[in-house]
Amino acid sequence: TRGEMAKSTQLIDNEVFRAYATYAAIVLLKMMLMSLITAYFRITRKAFVNPEDTESFGKGESAKKYLRTDPDVERARRGHLNDLENIVPFVGIGLLYALSSPELSTALLHFRIFTGARIFHTFAYLMPLPQPSRGLSWAVGYSVTFSMAYRVLKTVWLL
Amino acid sequence: TRGEMAKSTQLIDNEVFRAYATYAAIVLLKMMLMSLITAYFRITRKAFVNPEDTESFGKGESAKKYLRTDPDVERARRGHLNDLENIVPFVGIGLLYALSSPELSTALLHFRIFTGARIFHTFAYLMPLPQPSRGLSWAVGYSVTFSMAYRVLKTVWLL
Amino acid sequence: TRGEMAKSTQLIDNEVFRAYATYAAIVLLKMMLMSLITAYFRITRKAFVNPEDTESFGKGESAKKYLRTDPDVERARRGHLNDLENIVPFVGIGLLYALSSPELSTALLHFRIFTGARIFHTFAYLMPLPQPSRGLSWAVGYSVTFSMAYRVLKTVWLL
Repeated sequence: TRGEMAKSTQLIDNEVFRAYATYAAIVLLKMMLMSLITAYFRITRKAFVNPEDTESFGKGESAKKYLRTDPDVERARRGHLNDLENIVPFVGIGLLYALSSPELSTALLHFRIFTGARIFHTFAYLMPLPQPSRGLSWAVGYSVTFSMAYRVLKTVWLL
Repeated sequence: TRGEMAKSTQLIDNEVFRAYATYAAIVLLKMMLMSLITAYFRITRKAFVNPEDTESFGKGESAKKYLRTDPDVERARRGHLNDLENIVPFVGIGLLYALSSPELSTALLHFRIFTGARIFHTFAYLMPLPQPSRGLSWAVGYSVTFSMAYRVLKTVWLL
Repeated sequence: TRGEMAKSTQLIDNEVFRAYATYAAIVLLKMMLMSLITAYFRITRKAFVNPEDTESFGKGESAKKYLRTDPDVERARRGHLNDLENIVPFVGIGLLYALSSPELSTALLHFRIFTGARIFHTFAYLMPLPQPSRGLSWAVGYSVTFSMAYRVLKTVWLL
């Protein structure tokens, strides 16, 4: 059974799976970056939501004025939530797709377009760029995930 | 090593894994649909949150009135967030469950009840149906994921 | 092909993967618990967001007063969203990390520190504990996921 173990962990030797691992890690790290961006805006704009977060600015009323919303903080938070809504399906469906034995070149195309679209989406949201920049980059990422799901369902049902 | 690679990607040949792939893809696609429903309500109700999204309706004050919340938009957004909160654990724990060698019939029962419950939940939320429709469908999906987690932990600890 | 199937499902025999399965299931269950905590506060504080949820308290105006926000409900919801933002990357990157053949002891260290940090984070958020308790526990979990992502990318690129 030691041999079987070794084999079962060799998924990482598969080229498509390795491509998946690379791009899934990159988009998840990009999503994690949104926490730092939100924290940066909260601290520089002094806009917090939890009373205990403002205590270092003084006690009582003087700290209370920092319990407020700020447009930049809210914008970063919306970008973060949009990442969750779109990167979670990519990571889940992408894993199944990577296991459905697609061509490496096709898989790379899917992973790279999605990753590029989501990085552009974040810039479009934070700067912000005029529409339809953000809308189009969202639609590109959405379509890539949809295309992978189609391939997964086709593979599973035809086997 | 070509042989090992081939083997390691054969996860998709496993019947339980294929059932998992099908239902995980379906619920993730259903969750992605919530983005389209939210966008539909934003456009038909003319209720946006980003100033750059309203620019096609005119400049300055005339566009500003579309920066507002709308009950249908907010309802669709809550349904989307509830999906994230419940479908993410299903996809993660379901993958581990599929790898714990359950009976195919038991696995199908879990996957199908969850998928049915979440589709019903979306209808119950959007129409909306009177309670406890939404609450019960939420509880059914929650229990299925809990049951799969129990099986995963039991399998892992007994090996 | 029955033999291949058996082999491909043996991932669960791998010690690192078993450790991953245990801690991924635990943090996902912990995240699911946030739904129950939010529901508990909604019911005890009588603070709801959907009109259909207040109908059991009476019809019309008498029920409308329960459509309101409550600080404890909002706090539990923020804790839940923070879990989504942090546990999703852990589960996704952790799976890739578990497949990158790390030492069992190193893997256990990563998984246990993350799990401990997130459980502490929930207590720090809900009680709430004075800062920087919550901030530090967030940073510890974040760093663990980052460290796993670094190992994944290093492994994939060096193969």
